[in-house]
Amino acid sequence: MIGHLNHVAVAVHNVRETARVYRDLLGARISAPQELPEHGVTAIFIELDNTKIELLEPLGQDSPISQFLQKRGSGVHHICLEVASIADAAEKLQQQGCRLLGADTPQIGAHGKPVLFLHPSTFDGTLIELEEA
Amino acid sequence: MIGHLNHVAVAVHNVRETARVYRDLLGARISAPQELPEHGVTAIFIELDNTKIELLEPLGQDSPISQFLQKRGSGVHHICLEVASIADAAEKLQQQGCRLLGADTPQIGAHGKPVLFLHPSTFDGTLIELEEA
Repeated sequence: MIGHLNHVAVAVHNVRETARVYRDLLGARISAPQELPEHGVTAIFIELDNTKIELLEPLGQDSPISQFLQKRGSGVHHICLEVASIADAAEKLQQQGCRLLGADTPQIGAHGKPVLFLHPSTFDGTLIELEEA
Repeated sequence: MIGHLNHVAVAVHNVRETARVYRDLLGARISAPQELPEHGVTAIFIELDNTKIELLEPLGQDSPISQFLQKRGSGVHHICLEVASIADAAEKLQQQGCRLLGADTPQIGAHGKPVLFLHPSTFDGTLIELEEA
């Protein structure tokens, strides 16, 4: 079912400051900051040759990243893997009794594509996002 | 300086059990378990189309993964990025006053290639490994 690793999402306190470190120390290509108020984040992408790291900073009230920073501290928030069809993935996962986070039906993610999140307990502590390729 | 994301390393309690979930729920290709006593880990690789996830379980006394599990719980342990030359990377990072973990000189990592680790405080909480491509 899964194909590419689409991105690794990292919760940080300040995307601009952390992105500068990736750029200046490691020579990484970084995007401009993008505000995504519907997801409660400001994002900067660290472009790698085969995938990307997404730095996420809380934006607005009730940001899921604020909660994560308070509870866990900064660090990797989730790993996003690509699937050919989110609808097929959701159906198969629900048939297997897999616990999805949030709504039972796929939502539109930060890249404008259908996504779903699998509960971290499924993978012994790792939050996995599936995104339609 | 950095190119490909080589792998995302995830600390888990039992690599066999967690790898089975990746295989059975997500259809992932998984490797056989590999014991790496010199690194204090048993590893299983989740093969993705563009990179891999490395599941790491403590092996033996003084495993760094045991300490991580006790302190932080299971979840992503580090992100490994490729560089053309570890010696050049180490020199450049030390010139910029960057804090390296462990020995000041590059060590041989779990794939038999030179590696170094950057202190997680550098990247606001994310442990970054550099590996020679």
